[in-house]
Amino acid sequence: MEKRLARRVSRTAQSGLGNVFAASNPNLISFAAGFPAEDLFPKAALKKAFSDIFDRPGNDTLQYHDSLGLKSLREKIARHLNQTGTPAHADQLMLTQGAQQGIDLVARLVLDPGDGLAVEAPTYIGALASFDAYEPTYYEIPVAADGLDTTQLQKTLLQHDIKLLYTIPDYQNPTGTVMSLSKRQTLIQLAERYNFIILEDSPYRDLTYDQHTLPSLKSLDTNGRVINLGSFSKILAPGLRLGWLTAETELFDNLVELKAGSDVETSSVIMQGVNTYLDQNDLDAHIQVIRDSYTQKMNAMLTALQQEMPNQIHYNTPTGGFFIWLTAPTQIDMGQLLIKRMMPEGNVSYVPAKNLFPSKQHNNAARLNFTGQSIPNIYEGIHRMATILRSELTHVEQPMYAAFNR
Amino acid sequence: MEKRLARRVSRTAQSGLGNVFAASNPNLISFAAGFPAEDLFPKAALKKAFSDIFDRPGNDTLQYHDSLGLKSLREKIARHLNQTGTPAHADQLMLTQGAQQGIDLVARLVLDPGDGLAVEAPTYIGALASFDAYEPTYYEIPVAADGLDTTQLQKTLLQHDIKLLYTIPDYQNPTGTVMSLSKRQTLIQLAERYNFIILEDSPYRDLTYDQHTLPSLKSLDTNGRVINLGSFSKILAPGLRLGWLTAETELFDNLVELKAGSDVETSSVIMQGVNTYLDQNDLDAHIQVIRDSYTQKMNAMLTALQQEMPNQIHYNTPTGGFFIWLTAPTQIDMGQLLIKRMMPEGNVSYVPAKNLFPSKQHNNAARLNFTGQSIPNIYEGIHRMATILRSELTHVEQPMYAAFNR
Repeated sequence: MEKRLARRVSRTAQSGLGNVFAASNPNLISFAAGFPAEDLFPKAALKKAFSDIFDRPGNDTLQYHDSLGLKSLREKIARHLNQTGTPAHADQLMLTQGAQQGIDLVARLVLDPGDGLAVEAPTYIGALASFDAYEPTYYEIPVAADGLDTTQLQKTLLQHDIKLLYTIPDYQNPTGTVMSLSKRQTLIQLAERYNFIILEDSPYRDLTYDQHTLPSLKSLDTNGRVINLGSFSKILAPGLRLGWLTAETELFDNLVELKAGSDVETSSVIMQGVNTYLDQNDLDAHIQVIRDSYTQKMNAMLTALQQEMPNQIHYNTPTGGFFIWLTAPTQIDMGQLLIKRMMPEGNVSYVPAKNLFPSKQHNNAARLNFTGQSIPNIYEGIHRMATILRSELTHVEQPMYAAFNR
Repeated sequence: MEKRLARRVSRTAQSGLGNVFAASNPNLISFAAGFPAEDLFPKAALKKAFSDIFDRPGNDTLQYHDSLGLKSLREKIARHLNQTGTPAHADQLMLTQGAQQGIDLVARLVLDPGDGLAVEAPTYIGALASFDAYEPTYYEIPVAADGLDTTQLQKTLLQHDIKLLYTIPDYQNPTGTVMSLSKRQTLIQLAERYNFIILEDSPYRDLTYDQHTLPSLKSLDTNGRVINLGSFSKILAPGLRLGWLTAETELFDNLVELKAGSDVETSSVIMQGVNTYLDQNDLDAHIQVIRDSYTQKMNAMLTALQQEMPNQIHYNTPTGGFFIWLTAPTQIDMGQLLIKRMMPEGNVSYVPAKNLFPSKQHNNAARLNFTGQSIPNIYEGIHRMATILRSELTHVEQPMYAAFNR
């Protein structure tokens, strides 16, 4: 007899998230995965920290603790958040298995099957993989150069009941855009008027390359409608798998209960190791080293795009984060092109637009990551992409479209 | 306006899982939490392993990888499972954030709201906390001294559609019982006849104190209906938060996708550390050390129970695992007694039966953990419990009940 699975399985099986991170041939230059630069991981300092935690008296580090996570680490993160424009208290901050688990727990907190969920279009593919498991009704809100289109959001809210809105306001994944202050203020007002919860995902917030950050949505929130997520994956190392969430008390207490059912607690060894790293090192100085390196890589990719890409290819100029968003004429299916030419012929890859929209209706764009490759590889990879795009564009006749989906 | 949350929140908020693990006063002797003995954690060997992983060339350990987990560690676990009566292949084995995440992912794989879920009664409280989030219809199958009551299960199957059955066949949590071989065979036949999936949770399987184990359910399964869970929490250290699941290909591939959406992947640092520990140490020898120590602790608790407890108090004699199940006359509410006398007056605690049944209809029993306390504390704690139970029983008039819920 055929085994009987949940409805959600037929949806999530199509996420394609596995493919993005799949192992690849050694000649491939991948702009696909959102990998940080490995050479920036503070290996020696982490070795010392992870060794030192085992020198303390007792074996408490290796025991069970609680779903909240290590208090002294929560205090350090809360301090960092307060210093960078996100109000936070250690007793309303929980450590998670990366920010991804935060997305999953908030979806679990808020969404019944069929509930209205507004997402930026395009958005983070991993968030969709998580949301899919809760079977929401998706509403796509287009992303403009200054963040999600609040006018379109308001139209959607007049017609549909939205219970949760997911946004990455700072250096959005995949477009690299920043939501303007006025849009942030409008979004908070709309959340209050239409009674929805905002999930503010901020993994890139510290990675600003113009030394300028706007107030977080959480800082503008007066009624506890914003849940904020963060992570050490982009500012320390993803192999730790350590993130956090912060929310006001009522939501927070429920999230802690849901975490207990989900995986009991975050690894005490990891929390102690990172806490000791933070005791022994200057995280802000390390973040500045990352910023400097990624600024050079971003500028290299922008230079390469400017030098190599035909006029019909558009792209934006981010001020932080991991990604540049590239838009081709509507006739170009960047997904098909990836499979048929870019990977087999060009040995270059990226994330095509299609899977970044719940509706899967946009094919003529791609996410380019600039942090995971060396500068020579960035130049070479963009050259390979441009060569193939130029040859494709000789077959395309009309001009077209806008860089963002307005 | 009141914030709108998912239906599941009102259920999971009552799990009470947090209380079981909550911090307590220093004079308390807790038989509540299922804590392993801290003095058995191989701290020096883990320090070496977690230090050595940072000595390798490159920074790959700190990067993203995939949702399956470290291949050489999956191979080692598969070998261990094959040697101990559970068929497994590394390519059908995924590393998880403890076995708890395995429970959560399998519930996510199988359960739509309202679907029939059979659980042992009583069962693991953390499993209920996880299942609650998927809003199943629970069917309680009583546990006898030789495991779940398959006759009662068959009656339930004739009347109700069951999609998933959750069991801990070896040294069950909370009763410490082992499912007999004939019941294991019957269960597999019923799963095939009534088309349900079996979730076999085996965190205690290696901790046998009579050197005798039965074939796992997975080894008796011919049609891929059994998903098996395991964990390093009880045989190495819970602070690692590392477990695994193994399933046949169709179910497995879907579980890997669900893991990606849930938390992307397990910590590479933890997987590399444990893998290196296993390269450098003899896990089987370490498990034997644990078995010897826990055998002494179990025998101490059994001796104390025999010496101290009044005749009206029944308990079983396990052959492995972490727990002894204590049953009082039905008039004694072990939950109320815990709060009103055992903790404030006796400075002793345990897990009362009530929350271990989805129906919360049984109050006259308790789970006693014997691994987390020293032998002197075991004697003292049982003495405290017995003193209060004796004074309570002077008010109880009639005799009573059976040790298990038959």
